[in-house]
Amino acid sequence: MSDTETLGVVGGGQLGRMLAEAAAPLGVEVVVLDPTPECPASPVARDQIVGEFDDEEGVRELASRADYLTYEIELADPDLLEAVGWEFDVPVHPDPETLRTIQDKLVQKEALREAGIPVPDFRQVDDREDLEAALDEFGYPVMLKAREGGYDGRGNVPIEDEADVGAALAEIEETTDGEGANAMVEEFVDFEREVSVIGAKGAGETATFPLGENVHREEILRETVVPARTDEAVAERAREVAEDVLDLLSGRGVYGIEMFKAPDGEISVNEIAPRPHNSGHYTIEGALTSQFEQHVRGVTGRPLGATDLRSPIAMANILGDIEERQPADLSGDEEILSHPDASYHWYGKHEVYPLRKMGHLTVIGEAESDTEELLRDARDLRDEVTFE
Amino acid sequence: MSDTETLGVVGGGQLGRMLAEAAAPLGVEVVVLDPTPECPASPVARDQIVGEFDDEEGVRELASRADYLTYEIELADPDLLEAVGWEFDVPVHPDPETLRTIQDKLVQKEALREAGIPVPDFRQVDDREDLEAALDEFGYPVMLKAREGGYDGRGNVPIEDEADVGAALAEIEETTDGEGANAMVEEFVDFEREVSVIGAKGAGETATFPLGENVHREEILRETVVPARTDEAVAERAREVAEDVLDLLSGRGVYGIEMFKAPDGEISVNEIAPRPHNSGHYTIEGALTSQFEQHVRGVTGRPLGATDLRSPIAMANILGDIEERQPADLSGDEEILSHPDASYHWYGKHEVYPLRKMGHLTVIGEAESDTEELLRDARDLRDEVTFE
Repeated sequence: MSDTETLGVVGGGQLGRMLAEAAAPLGVEVVVLDPTPECPASPVARDQIVGEFDDEEGVRELASRADYLTYEIELADPDLLEAVGWEFDVPVHPDPETLRTIQDKLVQKEALREAGIPVPDFRQVDDREDLEAALDEFGYPVMLKAREGGYDGRGNVPIEDEADVGAALAEIEETTDGEGANAMVEEFVDFEREVSVIGAKGAGETATFPLGENVHREEILRETVVPARTDEAVAERAREVAEDVLDLLSGRGVYGIEMFKAPDGEISVNEIAPRPHNSGHYTIEGALTSQFEQHVRGVTGRPLGATDLRSPIAMANILGDIEERQPADLSGDEEILSHPDASYHWYGKHEVYPLRKMGHLTVIGEAESDTEELLRDARDLRDEVTFE
Repeated sequence: MSDTETLGVVGGGQLGRMLAEAAAPLGVEVVVLDPTPECPASPVARDQIVGEFDDEEGVRELASRADYLTYEIELADPDLLEAVGWEFDVPVHPDPETLRTIQDKLVQKEALREAGIPVPDFRQVDDREDLEAALDEFGYPVMLKAREGGYDGRGNVPIEDEADVGAALAEIEETTDGEGANAMVEEFVDFEREVSVIGAKGAGETATFPLGENVHREEILRETVVPARTDEAVAERAREVAEDVLDLLSGRGVYGIEMFKAPDGEISVNEIAPRPHNSGHYTIEGALTSQFEQHVRGVTGRPLGATDLRSPIAMANILGDIEERQPADLSGDEEILSHPDASYHWYGKHEVYPLRKMGHLTVIGEAESDTEELLRDARDLRDEVTFE
């Protein structure tokens, strides 16, 4: 690589920030497009263009300055990215077609099923009649999901029994701006563990990171521990499924592939993100290459890096633990900084609101460390931190 | 720590760049002052102020935006930093008094000797007479050093025999703008190895990184390998000497402490840098905390991080291998990116000149790895890279 290259990123949240941190050592400068002035990525990016993710002038300005375009948020506009990529002759990765498929959870699941990739059973839900027909088939509980626009659990509503149906439909309709349900319903997966693989596509090569185990509460990721507490056969099966997903999707870069592991060891795909994923943050300290560096390598056509685990590791998200939106005034992070095996990642958000992702921490172990202990340490440190 | 803090850095070269990369996860934004537009730190800093290191208006602007001031180059002006620090009530670390002591190699050595820290014998050299008197005492060879302004071997001239004396004095006088010799001469140390310790001072605490072994050629660092190929007693003695140096110097932050190890195991201090040091670049992948994060922690009064080695590691500098200043057009870095255990750090310099530091790479091993092998791998990868 000769001259400095520039990566244009739609979105400048924490993923954009960590992309910029990882891009610099490779000699890649980052410019981000984000509507929030002083967005998390802005202090470490060459520049921020202030504009909505789907603002045509903003995306065109981004493309005019970039050698490659990517996005760190599914709210990016695939049609606009495709058109602007052609206009400015700038490659867009992952492929806008992939973003289009993934944005619509129903289309995503159909594509996975067609490719023979195991997924929970699902039905399209346009109205109450569709939902009731599916409930007759699947029984209770089920998960009702808005096809588009969901994020960190918003747009995913569990239905436990008949009494939940009306409220669930109303909540989903709220996310679709009154355009009807525009939803899907999924059978309940009685999973034993939630796991994920961060996969990457490069120029003619793929790579997968070790299997991580995820703990969610209120549909939001709380912790990841790696290696996952499963046997080798399950890890290998998850890797195969991840490779099938990478084969199906087009475009270079990193993909977060969330899966369920059933008690009998069966793996099914829950959701895919065409970008670095919260469950892959552990790779910064835990793997030979971080998912952010891997994304930059992939998107820019550089060789992919090695994905081996360096140490067992646990990651805990630092979420807004307050009731109302307020200025971010954190205490307790000195405990993290004082812990010899802990690493701290603050996202630089100026405001906190309930359950907003404000930062994360990791605790690394030795080769033979007990992951339960790492997870406990990570939780204890996280619990010291408060915005109250 | 509540709000985002800003660290103002005099100098925006590769050290400033790696400081900015390390500061972001801690929630610290970096602003740099550097005379070269688009300096290496600029793409990852919140802002660059374009100005000379000793430009009063530039330093005042930096202070007006910063919660803490530091410097990544000895060419910073201690009097100016002290005055501006007072004016804007911004702490400066390390202490400008420490910078003043270190900037003058004669004053530095006198301070070390007075504190009982082992140093090679030396004499002040203001003119040819002084030099000849010292040569009568020390014999040949000796090292003639400009007291101020030396960098990466510039200003250090070995004198092998009588025939070298005139040329050496002339070369030193060139670096002092014709103000006479203003030099010092040091006895020749028949060292077995050059080693270094990166030390850090925090708020009421100190920490030292593991002993690194350095390979120089033409007075420029080429490689570092860690752990150093010495026994435990030598490593412990070097750590003690480093702690004595940290006790002597005032002001928080990271110090690079270069030492000689004699064949009998004796340690003597060669030179000190009041900033992150090239021989500590290995800490990014090799240690639990990087020297850059440690500097940010120290300067901002955060707790110091753990300094344990994660893996044996070798670092090789990528230097300009050309004859004349020219645009930086690199090839061969794909080999680095393709090596599973290698990490790459490109500094984003747009021009290359002979022996200019353009980037570095590291190769990490496993707990039991042979450091000779790591060093060989690092050199092989470095040798693939060329600007020709």
